[in-house]
Amino acid sequence: MTEHGITESGTTTTAPLATTLDALRAALGADAVRVGEQISEHAMTDWTRHEPTRPAALLLPCTTGEVSRALAICHAARQPVVPQGGMTGLAGGAIARATDIALSLERLAGVEELDAASATLTVRAGTTLQTAQEAAEAAGFELALDLGARGSCQIGGNLATNAGGNRVIQSGTARDQVLGLEVVLANGDVLSSLGKMVKNNTGYDLKHWFIGSEGTLGVITRAVLRLHPRRATRHTALVALDHYDAAVSLLRRLATRFGNDIGAFEIMWPDFYDFGVKLTGTRSPFEAAHPLYALIEHAGFDADDAGERFARVLTDALEAGALRDAVIAQSVGDARALWAIRECTAEFPLKLDPINFDVSLPIGEIGAFVDRCRAALDQRWPGNEAYFFGHIGDSNLHLTVDGRSVPGVDHHAVYAFVYEMLRPLRGSVSAEHGIGSLKREFLPISRSPAELAAMIAIKRALDPHGILNPGKLF
Amino acid sequence: MTEHGITESGTTTTAPLATTLDALRAALGADAVRVGEQISEHAMTDWTRHEPTRPAALLLPCTTGEVSRALAICHAARQPVVPQGGMTGLAGGAIARATDIALSLERLAGVEELDAASATLTVRAGTTLQTAQEAAEAAGFELALDLGARGSCQIGGNLATNAGGNRVIQSGTARDQVLGLEVVLANGDVLSSLGKMVKNNTGYDLKHWFIGSEGTLGVITRAVLRLHPRRATRHTALVALDHYDAAVSLLRRLATRFGNDIGAFEIMWPDFYDFGVKLTGTRSPFEAAHPLYALIEHAGFDADDAGERFARVLTDALEAGALRDAVIAQSVGDARALWAIRECTAEFPLKLDPINFDVSLPIGEIGAFVDRCRAALDQRWPGNEAYFFGHIGDSNLHLTVDGRSVPGVDHHAVYAFVYEMLRPLRGSVSAEHGIGSLKREFLPISRSPAELAAMIAIKRALDPHGILNPGKLF
Repeated sequence: MTEHGITESGTTTTAPLATTLDALRAALGADAVRVGEQISEHAMTDWTRHEPTRPAALLLPCTTGEVSRALAICHAARQPVVPQGGMTGLAGGAIARATDIALSLERLAGVEELDAASATLTVRAGTTLQTAQEAAEAAGFELALDLGARGSCQIGGNLATNAGGNRVIQSGTARDQVLGLEVVLANGDVLSSLGKMVKNNTGYDLKHWFIGSEGTLGVITRAVLRLHPRRATRHTALVALDHYDAAVSLLRRLATRFGNDIGAFEIMWPDFYDFGVKLTGTRSPFEAAHPLYALIEHAGFDADDAGERFARVLTDALEAGALRDAVIAQSVGDARALWAIRECTAEFPLKLDPINFDVSLPIGEIGAFVDRCRAALDQRWPGNEAYFFGHIGDSNLHLTVDGRSVPGVDHHAVYAFVYEMLRPLRGSVSAEHGIGSLKREFLPISRSPAELAAMIAIKRALDPHGILNPGKLF
Repeated sequence: MTEHGITESGTTTTAPLATTLDALRAALGADAVRVGEQISEHAMTDWTRHEPTRPAALLLPCTTGEVSRALAICHAARQPVVPQGGMTGLAGGAIARATDIALSLERLAGVEELDAASATLTVRAGTTLQTAQEAAEAAGFELALDLGARGSCQIGGNLATNAGGNRVIQSGTARDQVLGLEVVLANGDVLSSLGKMVKNNTGYDLKHWFIGSEGTLGVITRAVLRLHPRRATRHTALVALDHYDAAVSLLRRLATRFGNDIGAFEIMWPDFYDFGVKLTGTRSPFEAAHPLYALIEHAGFDADDAGERFARVLTDALEAGALRDAVIAQSVGDARALWAIRECTAEFPLKLDPINFDVSLPIGEIGAFVDRCRAALDQRWPGNEAYFFGHIGDSNLHLTVDGRSVPGVDHHAVYAFVYEMLRPLRGSVSAEHGIGSLKREFLPISRSPAELAAMIAIKRALDPHGILNPGKLF
């Protein structure tokens, strides 16, 4: 970050590491300050498995007060600190360098309160998403945040990265689930804004500064999450479509009939669909091949006739020529088989050498972008294998290029090639995974110099010594 | 704001006003720089009618570029600027002092684009809410922001104050309707983040820094608003309840059956209800008096049987003893008559001397707070007339005390007395109206010293000379 004038790790600490560690041991207890072999591999990299690095130390505070004391010590010493959650990120955002101190929230865990009248759940940052989900469900509610890493990822990390996941089309991203937030600033000051109120216009809404800031502005320690009523019914369909515009029309048609009871609208281009069918060893429920597929879920509240109404709307669409074909799951097993095709991505790391993209674009522009992108990839690297799919209701497109199909080509060249195509569209190089360290150089494709300058002004105001997660984002 | 070290208006400008006005005329044209009698009364106060003041000048820029040039000139001259929308605020947030320059967005108006595929509406800040609503409706969508001032208030002001209004329970506040935002910073830099994407995790989400900041961090010039499918059905009921906890239980019961198809859940305590019936000259649809009333609206998508299902759920609740009584509107006229009781507040300024509160509390604590507050008011000012009502699904309680019933008591004493009761609960002194200048002294009831210090650090980072809306918020 030196080009922005923010302190670079390791170059400007004002105290020797040993002195800082002694102060941290005095504040947190010796057991909460790990060094060398005491640091488990878990703290060394994330789910990208990118360059595992042993940090200079690993802190394990148990309370907000301990996080505050630890940060005050590091702030005074100009010692870089990298906040760590479940280490399930896909952008390198929580990977510490050898001169950084990692601060894990894993001991600051647990559900503090479920308030049924307010429909809120107060949790500590180190609580896993699954634990929070189960607490909500036990009280008849639903936490509207879900993603594959639910058993390992932590609420603090989910909020710091504004995680997306499976329910965005219905209930928004992680940001939209937060009513109150407690954060410790770089200097140790505690901002405890743990209100349960939906409406609260008393000055700047501080929580929004920290959600999605990837640990660069403060360390999230607790949160008040909004709970939703539990959806009683789920119905799944797979439909075949003529082209991308037909998918957008169908999405709007369903919204007009079902509002936000549409819980998934996953588009699969034929390259992805055919590969998914092959990978899962299933059979396509359609006899013919089609230009585009959509996996659609209706998740509603009325158990009586939700399935019937969903089927009727799809049948009407078929008869009106808005669909080529449709299959409606008649059982949980049927639904699972349809979802298995979409979820073949879990096999990608085992079956190919994935070069993954997580971009976003205006919904209406995604179809043309896919066509242009495929043509450009074919021209640049003939014979490449690329799989396109996405949560298009959220404006989110995923693309995986198999590195084995472009032998001798550096992954970085593929990243740069595709991201560059987003520039004229002001598309996003990261819809849901964040920037971390891995996409840092591509951030200016999505953000203007004025936007980056404003971000850096804010970073300096809240973390003047630049100790929080240096080398990430900027 | 001098106690926070931020430049006080009029004391530190670096150029005489005449020089600044000459530079502004050169940049915007003489017609866009009004002084003295050329400034209409509209620019002098808001809907509080609080101390009308003629600003030193009124600017009427037509483009984002003109806003940028105007702010750059004022920034260089350390000249305070007060952004103005439709002047319908209730907290004095847009009232300029005699030494301030007011900057009206009224000429920067109009809908730029409706993107049906993305379900977005791009508008200029000076567009009235009603114009934006009509553009959405003409394309078969709905803008999920609505409030009484719709014909006069402007989108820029709605966003700068994070307006609440009639649909929060269903679709959130103004903040939740925004996908992209363009803002001009104090120094004239333009942050143009007009993306249409639902998901976009590329650095700090700048729009959230400005929404609800009441014009103290930047001037909003354009926005990309999210559109919702149009709700085809509306059904209204008035129910009578035993006590507040029964209202909360009913709210949760309805959410479990209808998700967010519940479009209103307005609680009226008997003092308010009886006064509303009297004021509107209607008759209560109930023969008996009841301890609590709820006006409920179901707004859904399925035209076939939505009304029948809504009635069935209320009938079940009645039979289960969860309600004392219920009336379901059988016509638009019926529904209007029920709403008229709740909307009698429009008559308040004419029929009494209103001392208005707009507070928020955790939903489960509102009932006990009302009881305590009424008892405390009765003890302090026997014979006072106080009317309690609220959008409790949004955790929002309103209270109006009739100043005529506490003769000789300064309004300020009543404000201080009630707000002080919120302090131990960390309640909000402003749920939806904002802080402006009128609630400034009460902000520390809802915000801790650490929170206020963080807000001021950001204010300094983004507006180092403190020219934007000084004397507001802090």
